[in-house]
Amino acid sequence: MNWPASVTIKEVGPRDGLQNEKVFVPTEDKIAWINQLSGTGLKSIEITSFVNPKWIPALADAAEVAAGIERMPGICYSALVPNRQGLERALEADVDEAAVFMSASETHNLRNINKSIRVTLPMLREVAQEALAAGKSVRGYVSTVFGCPYEGPVSIDEVIRVSDTLFEMGIGELSLGDTIGIANPKQVQEVLDILLQRFDANKLALHFHDTRGTALANILVSMDMGITTFDASAGGLGGCPYAPGASGNVASDDLLYMLEAMGIHTGVNQEKLLSAARFIQEKIGRELPSRNLHVGSSNVNG
Amino acid sequence: MNWPASVTIKEVGPRDGLQNEKVFVPTEDKIAWINQLSGTGLKSIEITSFVNPKWIPALADAAEVAAGIERMPGICYSALVPNRQGLERALEADVDEAAVFMSASETHNLRNINKSIRVTLPMLREVAQEALAAGKSVRGYVSTVFGCPYEGPVSIDEVIRVSDTLFEMGIGELSLGDTIGIANPKQVQEVLDILLQRFDANKLALHFHDTRGTALANILVSMDMGITTFDASAGGLGGCPYAPGASGNVASDDLLYMLEAMGIHTGVNQEKLLSAARFIQEKIGRELPSRNLHVGSSNVNG
Repeated sequence: MNWPASVTIKEVGPRDGLQNEKVFVPTEDKIAWINQLSGTGLKSIEITSFVNPKWIPALADAAEVAAGIERMPGICYSALVPNRQGLERALEADVDEAAVFMSASETHNLRNINKSIRVTLPMLREVAQEALAAGKSVRGYVSTVFGCPYEGPVSIDEVIRVSDTLFEMGIGELSLGDTIGIANPKQVQEVLDILLQRFDANKLALHFHDTRGTALANILVSMDMGITTFDASAGGLGGCPYAPGASGNVASDDLLYMLEAMGIHTGVNQEKLLSAARFIQEKIGRELPSRNLHVGSSNVNG
Repeated sequence: MNWPASVTIKEVGPRDGLQNEKVFVPTEDKIAWINQLSGTGLKSIEITSFVNPKWIPALADAAEVAAGIERMPGICYSALVPNRQGLERALEADVDEAAVFMSASETHNLRNINKSIRVTLPMLREVAQEALAAGKSVRGYVSTVFGCPYEGPVSIDEVIRVSDTLFEMGIGELSLGDTIGIANPKQVQEVLDILLQRFDANKLALHFHDTRGTALANILVSMDMGITTFDASAGGLGGCPYAPGASGNVASDDLLYMLEAMGIHTGVNQEKLLSAARFIQEKIGRELPSRNLHVGSSNVNG
C-alpha cells in the first residue's frame, strides 16, 4: 500500500458533532472550544451552521459563535449554509468558507432538506455564486454516498451527477459523506476507482462516520487511492441523538493517532487535540466514542 | 489492495476478554455464553486459561467451564496453558488445543510470566511436546510484537528468534500480539514484510487490541499481505481493568461487520454473534466498546 506524506484533517465537530448532540452547549463554551481547536495546528474548522435554528436548535447561536471566536491567521473558518438566507447570515458573520450540502439519494435529500434534488441544485447554485462573488470559497457536501438510511444502496451515477453539478457551481472541494457510517473498505475502493476517473483526488475529501467501526480502515484505503483530506470530529462527537453509545464522525484524535504513528504529516499536535476533545466531552457530559481519549494504563496481559 | 476470499475469526473473548475484566462472571454464565458462541458459526473458541487462579481469579473456574460447555463438532476449543501443571489440568479437561504464550520483550515476559525469555522457552517446549504427544494441537502466542509497555519499540530480530523457537517446538499457528493496541498500519506492513519472508502466511494469526482505534485498519493491511486468521473478542471485551472505557481485543462483531460487508466469507452469523456479545455485555454490566453493538437508529443528518 502507498500512503501520502501529509494529510489535512478538517475539524467538523463544532458543526456536525454538536448538531447531533442532545445537549445545548452554551455559546461561551463553544467559543472556548473552537479557540482551543484553533491552537492545535488544524488548518480548517467548520464552526457552525446557518441552518434555520428551528431545525437545529443546538446551533441557534451561529452568529454569536462566529463573532466570538478568535480568528487565527492561516485557518479556514467554515460554516454550513443551506440557502440564501443562511448565506446572508454567514456573510454578515464573515466566515471564510460557505459549505453547501445535499444528498445523493432522493429520499434522504427530501427528509433532510425538505426538497427534491432537482429543486435543491439551483438553490445551491445561487448560494455558491453569491458566496464566490463575496470572495468566499465554497465547499460541497454530498451525503449518503455509500448508502442511504431510507433507500439502501446509492447509485454511483447519481453521485457523479450531483458531484458534476456541484463542481460546475464553482465549489473548491467536494466532501463525500458516509452519513450513516455504513461504508466498507472494498466499497470505498470501488467508489473511488470510479470517481477518480472523473475528479482530481485533491478536490475530494472523505467524510466518514464510525458507526460500525470501519472509519479508519476506510480512510486507509482512501489514502492508498490518493485522497489526502478527511473530515473528523474531536472525540468522535455527534451522531447519537437517538442511539446512546452510537458513534458520530470519526474521531479527529483517533485519525491523528493513526496518521502520526504512520509518519504522515498533519501539522496537528496530539496532546492539544486530545485536550480539546476532553474539554468538549466534559461539556457534553457523556463519554465520547474516541478510543484515544480513553487510553489509560493499558492492559499488558493480552 | 487485495483481500482474501475467506477469513477465520478466532474468538478469544472467554479467555483474553474475561481475564481483563474486573467482574467475575459466574461459571454457568460463562458456559451459557460459550455455548452461544458455538452456535454462531465460529470454528475456534479459546474458552479459558489454566494459569494459576492466584494470578487470574477471573478464570479460576477453568476446569468447570471446560467440563460444562457443549462441544460442537467442527469447533476447536482451545485453552491457554502456561506450564506443565496447567497442561495437566487442560488435558484432564480435554481441550482440543493448548495455547502457549510468551513475549517478544524481556521486561514484559518477566512481568507477565515472572521468568526471563531464556527460562520460558524450554518450559514451553516441554508443554508443547507433551500436548502434541497427547494428540492436541498447540498454538503459540507472542505478545508485545508491535511495542512493549515497559521497553517501547521491540526488535523484529527478537520476534523472529522467539517465533523460530516456537515453530521448532511444533506449534501449528503463531499468533502475533499487539498487546497494548499500539500498532499502526504502516508498522504492520513493515513487520509482516519481514516475517513473511520466513513464515507462511497461513501459519500466522494477528491479534490486535483496539486501544487506539487502529485494529480494523491493521487487519485490513494484514489481509492485503496475505494473513487470513485474526483473533477477536465478542463485544470488544477485556483490556480495561484499570482504564475505564479503554478498549480490549478488537470486537469480533466489528471485524465480522467489515469482513461480511467486503464480501469476505467467515461462516459466522452476524445476528447470532451480536446476540452473544449483548449477553456478555449484560453479565459484565458495562457498555462494551464494540461499535456494532451500539448501532441504533443512526444519525441521518451528517
